[in-house]
Amino acid sequence: MKIVIVGGGSSYTPEIIEGLILRHDEFPVDTITLVDIASGKEKLEIIGQLAERMIDKAGVPIELTWTLDRRAALKDADFVSTQIRVGGLKAREKDERIPLSHGLIGQETNGAGGIFKALRTIPVLMELAEDVNEICPNAWIVNFTNPAGIVTEALLKYGAHKKVIGVCNIPYNMTQSAAEILQEDPKDVRIEFIGMNHFVFGSKVLVRGENKLDQVIDALVSQSVDFSPANIVSSGWSETFLRAVNMLPNPYHQYYFQKDSTLKKDLEAYEDNGTRAEQVQKIEEELFETYKNPDLDIKPEALEQRGGAYYSDVACSLMSSLYNNSQNIMTVNTLNNGAIVDLPHDSVIEVNCFITKDGPIPLTVGRIPQQIKADILMMKAFEEQVIKASLSGDYYDAYRAFIMNPLIKEEKTAKMVLDELLDAHKDYLPQFN
Amino acid sequence: MKIVIVGGGSSYTPEIIEGLILRHDEFPVDTITLVDIASGKEKLEIIGQLAERMIDKAGVPIELTWTLDRRAALKDADFVSTQIRVGGLKAREKDERIPLSHGLIGQETNGAGGIFKALRTIPVLMELAEDVNEICPNAWIVNFTNPAGIVTEALLKYGAHKKVIGVCNIPYNMTQSAAEILQEDPKDVRIEFIGMNHFVFGSKVLVRGENKLDQVIDALVSQSVDFSPANIVSSGWSETFLRAVNMLPNPYHQYYFQKDSTLKKDLEAYEDNGTRAEQVQKIEEELFETYKNPDLDIKPEALEQRGGAYYSDVACSLMSSLYNNSQNIMTVNTLNNGAIVDLPHDSVIEVNCFITKDGPIPLTVGRIPQQIKADILMMKAFEEQVIKASLSGDYYDAYRAFIMNPLIKEEKTAKMVLDELLDAHKDYLPQFN
Amino acid sequence: MKIVIVGGGSSYTPEIIEGLILRHDEFPVDTITLVDIASGKEKLEIIGQLAERMIDKAGVPIELTWTLDRRAALKDADFVSTQIRVGGLKAREKDERIPLSHGLIGQETNGAGGIFKALRTIPVLMELAEDVNEICPNAWIVNFTNPAGIVTEALLKYGAHKKVIGVCNIPYNMTQSAAEILQEDPKDVRIEFIGMNHFVFGSKVLVRGENKLDQVIDALVSQSVDFSPANIVSSGWSETFLRAVNMLPNPYHQYYFQKDSTLKKDLEAYEDNGTRAEQVQKIEEELFETYKNPDLDIKPEALEQRGGAYYSDVACSLMSSLYNNSQNIMTVNTLNNGAIVDLPHDSVIEVNCFITKDGPIPLTVGRIPQQIKADILMMKAFEEQVIKASLSGDYYDAYRAFIMNPLIKEEKTAKMVLDELLDAHKDYLPQFN
Amino acid sequence: MKIVIVGGGSSYTPEIIEGLILRHDEFPVDTITLVDIASGKEKLEIIGQLAERMIDKAGVPIELTWTLDRRAALKDADFVSTQIRVGGLKAREKDERIPLSHGLIGQETNGAGGIFKALRTIPVLMELAEDVNEICPNAWIVNFTNPAGIVTEALLKYGAHKKVIGVCNIPYNMTQSAAEILQEDPKDVRIEFIGMNHFVFGSKVLVRGENKLDQVIDALVSQSVDFSPANIVSSGWSETFLRAVNMLPNPYHQYYFQKDSTLKKDLEAYEDNGTRAEQVQKIEEELFETYKNPDLDIKPEALEQRGGAYYSDVACSLMSSLYNNSQNIMTVNTLNNGAIVDLPHDSVIEVNCFITKDGPIPLTVGRIPQQIKADILMMKAFEEQVIKASLSGDYYDAYRAFIMNPLIKEEKTAKMVLDELLDAHKDYLPQFN
Ligand SMILES: [Mn+2]
Ligand SMILES: [Mn+2]
Ligand SMILES: [Mn+2]
Ligand SMILES: [Mn+2]
Repeated sequence: MKIVIVGGGSSYTPEIIEGLILRHDEFPVDTITLVDIASGKEKLEIIGQLAERMIDKAGVPIELTWTLDRRAALKDADFVSTQIRVGGLKAREKDERIPLSHGLIGQETNGAGGIFKALRTIPVLMELAEDVNEICPNAWIVNFTNPAGIVTEALLKYGAHKKVIGVCNIPYNMTQSAAEILQEDPKDVRIEFIGMNHFVFGSKVLVRGENKLDQVIDALVSQSVDFSPANIVSSGWSETFLRAVNMLPNPYHQYYFQKDSTLKKDLEAYEDNGTRAEQVQKIEEELFETYKNPDLDIKPEALEQRGGAYYSDVACSLMSSLYNNSQNIMTVNTLNNGAIVDLPHDSVIEVNCFITKDGPIPLTVGRIPQQIKADILMMKAFEEQVIKASLSGDYYDAYRAFIMNPLIKEEKTAKMVLDELLDAHKDYLPQFN
Repeated sequence: MKIVIVGGGSSYTPEIIEGLILRHDEFPVDTITLVDIASGKEKLEIIGQLAERMIDKAGVPIELTWTLDRRAALKDADFVSTQIRVGGLKAREKDERIPLSHGLIGQETNGAGGIFKALRTIPVLMELAEDVNEICPNAWIVNFTNPAGIVTEALLKYGAHKKVIGVCNIPYNMTQSAAEILQEDPKDVRIEFIGMNHFVFGSKVLVRGENKLDQVIDALVSQSVDFSPANIVSSGWSETFLRAVNMLPNPYHQYYFQKDSTLKKDLEAYEDNGTRAEQVQKIEEELFETYKNPDLDIKPEALEQRGGAYYSDVACSLMSSLYNNSQNIMTVNTLNNGAIVDLPHDSVIEVNCFITKDGPIPLTVGRIPQQIKADILMMKAFEEQVIKASLSGDYYDAYRAFIMNPLIKEEKTAKMVLDELLDAHKDYLPQFN
Repeated sequence: MKIVIVGGGSSYTPEIIEGLILRHDEFPVDTITLVDIASGKEKLEIIGQLAERMIDKAGVPIELTWTLDRRAALKDADFVSTQIRVGGLKAREKDERIPLSHGLIGQETNGAGGIFKALRTIPVLMELAEDVNEICPNAWIVNFTNPAGIVTEALLKYGAHKKVIGVCNIPYNMTQSAAEILQEDPKDVRIEFIGMNHFVFGSKVLVRGENKLDQVIDALVSQSVDFSPANIVSSGWSETFLRAVNMLPNPYHQYYFQKDSTLKKDLEAYEDNGTRAEQVQKIEEELFETYKNPDLDIKPEALEQRGGAYYSDVACSLMSSLYNNSQNIMTVNTLNNGAIVDLPHDSVIEVNCFITKDGPIPLTVGRIPQQIKADILMMKAFEEQVIKASLSGDYYDAYRAFIMNPLIKEEKTAKMVLDELLDAHKDYLPQFN
Repeated sequence: MKIVIVGGGSSYTPEIIEGLILRHDEFPVDTITLVDIASGKEKLEIIGQLAERMIDKAGVPIELTWTLDRRAALKDADFVSTQIRVGGLKAREKDERIPLSHGLIGQETNGAGGIFKALRTIPVLMELAEDVNEICPNAWIVNFTNPAGIVTEALLKYGAHKKVIGVCNIPYNMTQSAAEILQEDPKDVRIEFIGMNHFVFGSKVLVRGENKLDQVIDALVSQSVDFSPANIVSSGWSETFLRAVNMLPNPYHQYYFQKDSTLKKDLEAYEDNGTRAEQVQKIEEELFETYKNPDLDIKPEALEQRGGAYYSDVACSLMSSLYNNSQNIMTVNTLNNGAIVDLPHDSVIEVNCFITKDGPIPLTVGRIPQQIKADILMMKAFEEQVIKASLSGDYYDAYRAFIMNPLIKEEKTAKMVLDELLDAHKDYLPQFN
């Protein structure tokens, strides 16, 4: 069985390699091919060599190669994982800085920055989907690339290849944290999720079938526990908010329901330390220095602090479940198919699925609870507009996405920030030229 | 843990008793209470004594009692199984004979007969639901009573108690038959079902995640294998029909797509042997004779020929899965909740569900395939009308159900048959008086 | 302003010519072009000459031409009316005879015959729509051709030209009849219609805003008044049916709710006089003899008995309303657009519309009343399947339409009748070859 | 014919009296009864006497009375117009001041203020609806009371009386302005509206059937023309916004798409002149001084500046159209009924309707254009939550409405403002005590 890792030069790759090594018994990969683009050649080399050392150390019969020739790499692939970053961290820096400089949330997957990440990424993955469909039509694309929900919807609605699943570590993290709060084994905890990637709520926390949501909310109220991954700092939620929503929010919800305080905090952090992208660039440099060490033959500890912890864990579990027809429940991004009654059946949602060889089958969720309906419906319509703009390359389509977004909305600011971002990213937005 | 069997004097009860004995390790019932109405007292006594002998013989620590006092029986119940027959086999005889005498399909759960079975049954179960909700509000009602889909929808939409699940052996039988055709272990076979009770189609036959539908259809074409339970005789399907529908029909579909030939066959059978109800009355008399034998302390072989084989097996498995939070997949009648996109979210459908302590969660099915959409939509709207009539007791509501039904439809015949059935069943239709 | 009449050699044309002459003040047509196919050349000639005499006699400044060159004819057209009959009355004869010979309803727009009329017609009109869109893109197509609802849905969903409206005289006739019953001026009567062409019900009869439905139903009950056009003979409805449906049925409903008696009547009529098509052929021969008379310069009386009375009246009124932005209410076949909540928004329905220069805007109807929901949903899904088959030319698609249709449904008969019709019509069904 | 004006002591009443006098020929009212509550007795007296002088001067045969006994007043009413203000302008002052003092938009029908106006008003009108349904069940309620859309939805969904129509002058004003821009008679202009009260967009500007939207947008771009009524000052829209939305916004949209600048402007105005409510209180005092003048026997000029110009004009036209079964098109607040496909069929929308004696019938609008879908869906779900809170009196329900609202959203501010408003209005919110 063969896995192709698109964006193989990413600093995250050692984690996925580790995951594949650890699962080799149940998920016997025999070939891993790392692919990247020319500008990432050096990093790809470093990662390739580290990965080779890791595999050797583990003594598993996996053949590893790396290449810049994507089409050659895809040959005979069974799984294609995508973890690309169009424009690299430099682009992310602009996604964060430009909105912040106009007093807007500047974040990688939310607001203006998130829109531009989608605009740059979707066309690239649409091309990948065409290649996959032509070269390895039975392969599953497991998409890590953010904004994972929007990207997956674009691929599933308009792409050439329909075997695509999007993954995020947020549901995994939330389950881990809830298990910790309840002092339970995470295997015994199943949260019912409702919503979309980075806008998902946990409506029930089931422990062996009993709903312990109230207990978790009590803990959040009293201890200000939260579910944030390393990349975003959250301030906790007020009791009133938690009782009124009566669901578990995810860390990204702070951008929407604590916009002013989050913006203040983010602006201060920006003035102190620059954008998160700049920090990450430094972390990455250090990571790659570590990776170069010819004595390193395991995933280094330092990677855990990078922010995407468990991402590859989730992806490896998913691939193994698909391969083994495991029929277990995982939370992934896939077609709604009716699971959330009030959303279009062909929307992509983040939902608990029964995972089979034939793909994920969502468990039904039902109607959107009234207290989050307004936001879920709005965000889904917004996502549709982002996809439309990413494919049309139409200026007004992009502007429409801006004024729909609750982190922007202001008609005049929208134009200024849009114009500045379009200019800053023009090399990665051929559809707008 | 306590189970109450409403309609405990039924000839099927020994099967459920056997099921509970065999599953005692995983599903440790400690009390079984059989309930029935006054007119069934004698049968209840016979069944109670047989069940007691079976339990003694098995040596399991289950306490068994029987009573005519339903409210007393319900105290502390964890599960309530319902297998009642309002009006008994005499009423079924009328449901079969009267339509046949006017040249219409006369069948227990379809056409005019099925409508009247619903009209008699729903009000009785609505009352039971009120009692359950008052006396043992945490108990699950596992409803065997036909027409199981319609009855379950009535209870879930309009009843006092919302923990209700409907069961039928058809999906189980279809899975067994498909496994046999494919020479696979039924545990490895999962059919994707779409539709409603007794109007369900199998759209995929998944064996360890691979769809083997074509192979099963090939077998049906070449061998005229079919999925009929003992109570209905089926004639097999033409190749054209199977290829065009491209799904597995269930045996009851013959009433709709082979109406003329089925009617002819049924009329002949009726002339030769009377109604099915009359045959069953004879079988039942013999069964009860057998049951009386004080030496009998196991479920007698003869019961298997009675028609509802596996019904209790399905029900016992379901109760055990609920109790154990088994998180396995079973096909039951429950709220659509979006699983079939084109049906109302609060309809009851027969669908693969993930079974948890918290109840069944449907796996999404998606849009209804075009080739069966017309019939599924029609039958669901018809079912809604039957429920409406059962609750309103309005003559025109009943007539409307008649002219909607594809086995009746004819405006004048509808009236004649309706009037005759209303008169014949008037003792069991207080809402129409 | 120019009108092109496609199928101009039809015996109905004098009626539309008369309509255009009478409305010349409000609807000042200056050019009428009749088009037909080569095999209809002789009839076209006869009609052309009669129409010329009619125009001369009326003294209106209309220029009339006729041609076999459709593309030339379409140049500068403002309105294109379509009244074609692919395969002519010979084809209709087969649509009627073949089903009847297998004991099925044999009718021009219902059941197997109606399906085949659609299969022959849709591809021809799809081509016309392409021509119109290319040559006279601002023109309205006013479609008379049956089955008008199905044909219009095919054009609006899949055709190249979106300015298409379907017309039928049934709503007009029903309004006239209701007005007569109520002894009111038809101008003061507005029936609220719900459903599709030839399957439409009247849910309210509003006279100056007051609903007189009950009075009309009372009259139907007591006098057996009915709404049949000349081409179908209806037997009246039973009181129970009328009270239960509590709407005005249309004459075609007899095929569904009086199927057995209608079939019996139709079979007797067939044995006595052959098919309706054969009768019509005789009438047409006589009509054309009349038309040839060089002294005839008005629409002859005899035409009124032909069956489609008022069809052209409806079409002329509609064209005039579009031209004049009249903003009056007419009942036409157009996109649902939400008017009937339970049908797809892109279905074609027959509905009261506010007629503007910009096209018809349906008045909302709301949810389908429960008593007709099963049939409306079924028939709409059936219609979708007929359209699918007409475009795919797939045998199984056609078979699927057959088994969905309540006038066929029987799996084996379906195949026999389908095969016979496919063979009989093969010259007009290139997509199936 | 009798009209009852609930809130008859309002300063607007002379306008409606004038409207009824002017329309007396087509809409022959013979009795007008003004009703108000005890605390408004003095104003009611002033208005009653002025109205009497106006009627005398006009010489129309209308009998006018005024009373504090609402139930007596309703006897024999044909129309009930509602123009109440629960808590009076003092309450409005709080609705404006409290949010502003926390840096939120403080406005009568939007944001926190609008929510509280709804919370105070809905229960009072629910009681009125019960009285109307009991005392004059055939009467139409014509609701002026803001937030008119939300209030009308509450009444139509949950109220005892179903003949309720909501009116606003915004669509009327927008049509007048568009006509002015296009130099057309307003009678020839019909805007297609989509959305809800105070959140409605104009998607087409039809002049005799031709869409002149582009021309109107051009004018707005070049001249900064806008559609504001006197009560809100608007700053015009940027070209980019207008081109991207490609619809006519209404003046209230500034609160959503120009929130920051509007807030700044409103805060400045507040610091200079206090709240709008305070200004209005002064205007009202002056108005009532004017009204007291025993020589005044016509509607005084000064009233036109009050802000609600044309409101009564719209209401009188509507009542006349209902009475006369005029079958003209008016834009009112009524049940969606499918007109906007993506909104619930039982939502209230502001939509063009065909006005009949039987009530308004919406013209279908179709799907919500993508560029406004996010906002329309969000606002409708928000409105549903406001209604829920107004009926439940549940603190969390009110809080949920707050965090759904795009003018609030911030979790902590929401609580502060909510608590302060609940306390300030506690006398008018019995359901929350
Ligand atoms: Mn993520
Ligand atoms: Mn069954
Ligand atoms: Mn017709
Ligand atoms: Mn207003």
